[in-house]
Amino acid sequence: MKTLSENVSFAGMQGVYSHQSTSCQCEMTFAVYLPPQAKKGPVPVLWYLSGLTCTHENAMTKAGAQAWAAEAGIAVVFPDTSPRGTDVADDAAIDLGQGASFYVDATQKPWAPHFNMWSYIADELPALIFEKFNLLQTAQGITGHSMGGHGALTLAMNRPEQYKSLSAFAPIANPTSAAWGQKQLTEYLGDDRAKWAKHDATLLIEKTGYPGHILIDQGADDQFANLLKPEKLAKAIEKSGQPGSFRMQPGYDHSYFFVASFMEDHIQHHAAILHRD
Amino acid sequence: MKTLSENVSFAGMQGVYSHQSTSCQCEMTFAVYLPPQAKKGPVPVLWYLSGLTCTHENAMTKAGAQAWAAEAGIAVVFPDTSPRGTDVADDAAIDLGQGASFYVDATQKPWAPHFNMWSYIADELPALIFEKFNLLQTAQGITGHSMGGHGALTLAMNRPEQYKSLSAFAPIANPTSAAWGQKQLTEYLGDDRAKWAKHDATLLIEKTGYPGHILIDQGADDQFANLLKPEKLAKAIEKSGQPGSFRMQPGYDHSYFFVASFMEDHIQHHAAILHRD
Repeated sequence: MKTLSENVSFAGMQGVYSHQSTSCQCEMTFAVYLPPQAKKGPVPVLWYLSGLTCTHENAMTKAGAQAWAAEAGIAVVFPDTSPRGTDVADDAAIDLGQGASFYVDATQKPWAPHFNMWSYIADELPALIFEKFNLLQTAQGITGHSMGGHGALTLAMNRPEQYKSLSAFAPIANPTSAAWGQKQLTEYLGDDRAKWAKHDATLLIEKTGYPGHILIDQGADDQFANLLKPEKLAKAIEKSGQPGSFRMQPGYDHSYFFVASFMEDHIQHHAAILHRD
Repeated sequence: MKTLSENVSFAGMQGVYSHQSTSCQCEMTFAVYLPPQAKKGPVPVLWYLSGLTCTHENAMTKAGAQAWAAEAGIAVVFPDTSPRGTDVADDAAIDLGQGASFYVDATQKPWAPHFNMWSYIADELPALIFEKFNLLQTAQGITGHSMGGHGALTLAMNRPEQYKSLSAFAPIANPTSAAWGQKQLTEYLGDDRAKWAKHDATLLIEKTGYPGHILIDQGADDQFANLLKPEKLAKAIEKSGQPGSFRMQPGYDHSYFFVASFMEDHIQHHAAILHRD
């Protein structure tokens, strides 16, 4: 693991690191915020998965997470959103290829063998960070924005024993029924829709749900609402009896100004669960 | 005035606007954050001046100011750091020309006639924003980072009746004695050092001071300390009896991670004064 930068932030440390990923078969960059409490003992960790076009950097610099993470005494990990590099397949569209992994393990060429972000986020990167940083492996939560909200919801519902707390900001909520989803799931996983089901938050809520309270914020003026399908997820939560708060926030759009506005609530949601368990 | 973007942020509005500047003789872009309280009546306004290479955007997206401004009920204005455009003089160095005005009215070619950022910040932009937004003209404070800290300190000490509250993050503190200053003041104002004096915070503290408590934060591990000369300003404050807190913050560098870490303190410093007067 290489250290690319470290900056003191809210009396903790915001670091950026890179390593050779076996899952993605390329050099991967990620960021870790350690709150000041990590100097004294291991702290819980919140995974923050970013959206289309983002790297590790967007949320690290724009979401204001460090202020609240320092207050709550939890670490935050900001992974990249896909494999990278000239050897890695890509596409001219912003919603496919590099920066647009949709957090799946791709089985179709040209995306296989690099696009294994599901395994990278859920297995490889945790193993690395629990080795390198002072973190509580038994106290992991997960959140994310847009495509990252989709990643957070689907990872946590498939692995509830791993992720003790769950939230999302304006997630891609029903990708098997939307243009943000059908295209990518076909490209990455092929035509067999049975293989898509574990990557659709709305279908997962209907099928298994999540054994905890889910916090979801969605801007009521989100310019991508027709691609996100928030109404499908909200309905599934209501119908299934899934414990959760689906908050439609008046006036907010899809930007990081929206994410930052509700970051305090999300950090507190996770911290309350992760410190309790 | 043209509206470039508006995003709801912490229940207020983060806008970006442009207008044709008479001072700078070019199109200028600036950002205004209006807290939710501005919907009910005029609010105080804090000017935030940015540093070398920045535009209006850096602090708007990275400093976390909106959270605290919304809480405190004050607006924040983020101007650009220089005139811009293909007709405007520039230099290959990052510390001269576009993005590096040093907040003076340039008298020397090729910087005259566009580089009039002193007049732009102190006269032209206030006239525009007080016409267009619901702000209290009698309750202005000013702060800034690095070159912007220099701008804030020098503007406020020259115009204490205009700026009722003052703070700075890692300001260029003694430009007449440093490489960040001597080069630019020569380029913009010429060789006559008498004309530099009103643009040096340390000299101004020694000469006139400021009729209020100044809050200054400086990272103890700032990589540009030899260009900023914080020790000169700290000594002048101490020696002159200027009311102020010069806080040397252990471990912090010159980045926006440093600025964001102390933004709450600065907003509260300004809000307490601006709401009282």
